[in-house]
Amino acid sequence: MATSHLAGPVLVIGTGLLGTSVGLGLRAKGVSVYLQDISPTAQGVAQDIGAGVVLHGEKIAPELVVIGAPPDVTARLVGDALLAYPNATVVDIASVKGSILDAVLADERLGEAETSRYVGTHPMAGREKSGPAAARGELFTAMPWVICAHQNAQPDRVIAAESLAIDLGATMHRMSVTEHDESVALISHFPQAASSMIASRLLNAEGHQLALAGNGLRDTTRIAASDEKLWIQIFAHNSKALIPILTGMKEDLDRLINTLQHPEEPGALLDLSQLMTEGNAGRARIPGKHGAPPQAFALVTVVVDDKPGQIAALLAQIGEAGINIEDLRMEHSAGHQVGLVDVSVLPGRRDELINALIFNGWKVAQ
Amino acid sequence: MATSHLAGPVLVIGTGLLGTSVGLGLRAKGVSVYLQDISPTAQGVAQDIGAGVVLHGEKIAPELVVIGAPPDVTARLVGDALLAYPNATVVDIASVKGSILDAVLADERLGEAETSRYVGTHPMAGREKSGPAAARGELFTAMPWVICAHQNAQPDRVIAAESLAIDLGATMHRMSVTEHDESVALISHFPQAASSMIASRLLNAEGHQLALAGNGLRDTTRIAASDEKLWIQIFAHNSKALIPILTGMKEDLDRLINTLQHPEEPGALLDLSQLMTEGNAGRARIPGKHGAPPQAFALVTVVVDDKPGQIAALLAQIGEAGINIEDLRMEHSAGHQVGLVDVSVLPGRRDELINALIFNGWKVAQ
Repeated sequence: MATSHLAGPVLVIGTGLLGTSVGLGLRAKGVSVYLQDISPTAQGVAQDIGAGVVLHGEKIAPELVVIGAPPDVTARLVGDALLAYPNATVVDIASVKGSILDAVLADERLGEAETSRYVGTHPMAGREKSGPAAARGELFTAMPWVICAHQNAQPDRVIAAESLAIDLGATMHRMSVTEHDESVALISHFPQAASSMIASRLLNAEGHQLALAGNGLRDTTRIAASDEKLWIQIFAHNSKALIPILTGMKEDLDRLINTLQHPEEPGALLDLSQLMTEGNAGRARIPGKHGAPPQAFALVTVVVDDKPGQIAALLAQIGEAGINIEDLRMEHSAGHQVGLVDVSVLPGRRDELINALIFNGWKVAQ
Repeated sequence: MATSHLAGPVLVIGTGLLGTSVGLGLRAKGVSVYLQDISPTAQGVAQDIGAGVVLHGEKIAPELVVIGAPPDVTARLVGDALLAYPNATVVDIASVKGSILDAVLADERLGEAETSRYVGTHPMAGREKSGPAAARGELFTAMPWVICAHQNAQPDRVIAAESLAIDLGATMHRMSVTEHDESVALISHFPQAASSMIASRLLNAEGHQLALAGNGLRDTTRIAASDEKLWIQIFAHNSKALIPILTGMKEDLDRLINTLQHPEEPGALLDLSQLMTEGNAGRARIPGKHGAPPQAFALVTVVVDDKPGQIAALLAQIGEAGINIEDLRMEHSAGHQVGLVDVSVLPGRRDELINALIFNGWKVAQ
């Protein structure tokens, strides 16, 4: 167990999915953690699963206070904590940063001595589920954690915030609040809004239509299952950065509808081609796993029976061949008891893998 | 090897991804297959990988002709085949059905004797890659295959078309051309257009923005990498069914933008809440694997080192425990050499699995 960069104790205020996960992760590093939530149930659950000890009015002097609350109450809780713990570094982990920083700096209870101890951060981790029961200490492992130090933040406070991210195994990114809010609007808030709009088209679909659903529909709508209460706040608090992106999509959508109304007209196919090629190019810009370029991996597809141990046996085979699996995906479909497994490997290992599998009697798609 | 329902020979006209895959699948069943394509290279590749024998003007009397061509030439090739092979059943496998049936019935070269031998079908399988080299005999395994028999199609011709789908391991669905075109517009063509529009927003993104990309962005844009040439035809040929769906999304998008312009106004949060809850409800309607209800599976998350054999060892463990894996997903992120694997199992097996993994020293997310 690697030792922590934080001496502690750490006080987590707000024991939802993220706050409780911070507690679990720090406890696993041996840091002493106190817990506090307006909901006695939430803080009780967090304590029960080992995220720390619920604070019952004891006087403590935390090194670090982590505010894990919804965006609309975060700024006030940050101010309260800065006043209650005059030596502590106070960080928040909300998904929006600009509106919260503005509110903290505008808090008349606070002078520069207080606000200089505040550092806004955003761990980019989450699940479709929410609440302390869904928390896990490894939630932040290998995930980006953005640190948004404001102009007057004390350097050692920024280091404390960065230590938290490092302790929890996250990948650290330094940005201004504006850079952060524009970035998450594009790569997180916009896809969420679009996915919800795609899924809402299915409300009046008929059974025979949905029976044809494939991975394309499943992938584009997966995050449409996300927690409603949290997202309406994120949308409201980051509206400024979100509007231009949605407006850009609206212009594309208008152009597409107009084109489809006259598909025979000259230039129509060119318009459609532009929609697809721009999509191809945009998709190609997303970095792959471990920052590798996208589509850097070769795909090998194997047919497996949908029985216990089948996939295990397949991957054991691949492991014996000493070939690393860069990505793995099961192809879904309704009504069948056999499945296809797409295994991504480094292109240089592809033929080697196919030969090894066929030699051992596996059904590899040719 | 199960024997085929088709006596054969079968002639595949158009040896792209789908046509060549049909050839490979039928050859694996021992059916004799002839190949034909306007591209000597394409038909040569198809023959080389074992999809059948290229036709060089020999006189043949195929039982079944499969037209695997782009939508815009399919109707003409169907007519040619009906005339060239007076005893053959002729099926096409294009992604749109209404516009092709209309063109076949309007073909002045054809009488009812000819058109009664035509059956439109649509195997709902594909890959991001195209061309005969990407073909595989198992492409249709466990995938839906829609049979659109028109009013005057002879029953035994419909049975021949259905035999093709069954021989290739697909799940058969019977629909009218209108039911088909409206269904695929909703569950396939619309998500494709939306995914391309999401991805095209990334064209001008900066590196530090894309570095934060997570599975949400990856999933919503995965199919944006699809083949441009094919999709512009699908959009153009199914515009009638696509327009109302895109218009519905446009209305949602307009409402969202207006709401975000005044997030403080009464009712704004209610509007945002509606967007999310409608998305939740729509997503929940998509049937899961093997037709199971969505989210019917319990999720167990395990931390693994990104080294050869790690996932294999993990799944071997699960196999030993006799627990079937319903779905498996690797969580991506840039810059780290450790990964999270989400394993979906039947809820009743969840605790059993967690205990087995922890007992054997695996790091299970709590």
